[in-house]
Amino acid sequence: MGVDLYFTLGELDPADVQNRTVVVVDVLRATSTIVEALANGARAIYPTTGTEEAIKLISSLGRDDTLLCGERRGLKIEGYDLGNSPAEFTREKVDGKRIVMNTTNGTQALVAVAGADRVFTGSFMNLSAVAKAVAGTDDLTVVCAGRGGRFSLDDAVCAGAILARLGTEWAKDSDTSDAARVALQLATHATVDAAFLAETAGGRNLVEIGMEADLELCATVDRHVLAPAMVDGTIRLLPGKGT
Amino acid sequence: MGVDLYFTLGELDPADVQNRTVVVVDVLRATSTIVEALANGARAIYPTTGTEEAIKLISSLGRDDTLLCGERRGLKIEGYDLGNSPAEFTREKVDGKRIVMNTTNGTQALVAVAGADRVFTGSFMNLSAVAKAVAGTDDLTVVCAGRGGRFSLDDAVCAGAILARLGTEWAKDSDTSDAARVALQLATHATVDAAFLAETAGGRNLVEIGMEADLELCATVDRHVLAPAMVDGTIRLLPGKGT
Repeated sequence: MGVDLYFTLGELDPADVQNRTVVVVDVLRATSTIVEALANGARAIYPTTGTEEAIKLISSLGRDDTLLCGERRGLKIEGYDLGNSPAEFTREKVDGKRIVMNTTNGTQALVAVAGADRVFTGSFMNLSAVAKAVAGTDDLTVVCAGRGGRFSLDDAVCAGAILARLGTEWAKDSDTSDAARVALQLATHATVDAAFLAETAGGRNLVEIGMEADLELCATVDRHVLAPAMVDGTIRLLPGKGT
Repeated sequence: MGVDLYFTLGELDPADVQNRTVVVVDVLRATSTIVEALANGARAIYPTTGTEEAIKLISSLGRDDTLLCGERRGLKIEGYDLGNSPAEFTREKVDGKRIVMNTTNGTQALVAVAGADRVFTGSFMNLSAVAKAVAGTDDLTVVCAGRGGRFSLDDAVCAGAILARLGTEWAKDSDTSDAARVALQLATHATVDAAFLAETAGGRNLVEIGMEADLELCATVDRHVLAPAMVDGTIRLLPGKGT
């Protein structure tokens, strides 16, 4: 099976992922936060591309059991219920809630691949579960959210780590892209921990804005055995899958 | 000095390179062809973004001493004088000529960075010369042309190899981008030869269209001690520089 991989959203034409199985990766922090929220009982996550869309959506869903969450420059957006730190998405806060999410990179990536056959969210926190969910597919595309449209090392290494769990046959396929091979190589040479994340551009930004603790959480490999899936634009845990 | 690097053109906002020193890399094959052409006596190279622009430019320059060169899908464009294989740009063909060039990736990248302070073209064929030309600048940006807007391993490794020749201080700078560090790492682990290029997506395409011989040429590290520079949209050898 040939594997494709996008380091940045700008490379992606939504038509490229039609009929494919996609994993979206935004280690710092959207896909880490998504799996943490679902693990703590959130019913569903609604990714949006901007505040206008997020406000409109939460108005139609009703605010009773829905939280509005997201960030700009890493910080909670004014008037929102929560930011984008996985540490905020505790069971106390999110159990039974729907979550409308609006972040700089991750939710843009999720919306961009909405036309794919299947979409999962991947992070270090659910590395093995997402790899298991996509194992054996012959049409896998991994999409890194990146950082402001730029290459992001944390996402690239996580994408490679997911691929590393799928064996090595795919890497020999002539349809496998240069980027997929490079991600595998990067993952092979990386040690995943908070110090690694702190050296990436995204990690440096979190340290600067006082959110260093998130690095420890986002670097916790296999904290959850869950593979969140996006169906009709909404991310949920599928019954009997990845649990 | 912080070093920036773009794996793909889609990540680049032309404003990002204002006041910066830029090296454009398109190993397969535009920047390899450019240095070969100038080494064989071509007077100047005019990069263009499409056939319409190329035809208009050659009409104004006059066809007497100007060649129209370029490719689509790797093959010479119908009616053009030459394609984009460095092997075609012999002294017999190009000595004393001006060259209007129109390729899928490389000339797009060159035009995109035309607003930079200084622009050089880099390839394995002039690796040391281009590194020497930019050594000591504190505002270096390397731009990989990529392949159809996608990440291209040959360009990434060449970009990293140029950076590797600039010592290691820059890699410690917190302004250095994730991509620059990754390119350095890729170059450290790569063996540059025709077999390496043949395994990249761009190289596989050249093998498929019967241009495998170009891989040997494009992998010849330091074949030329020349650092072509683009001034006012035209690429030339600067007197006394990189010769």
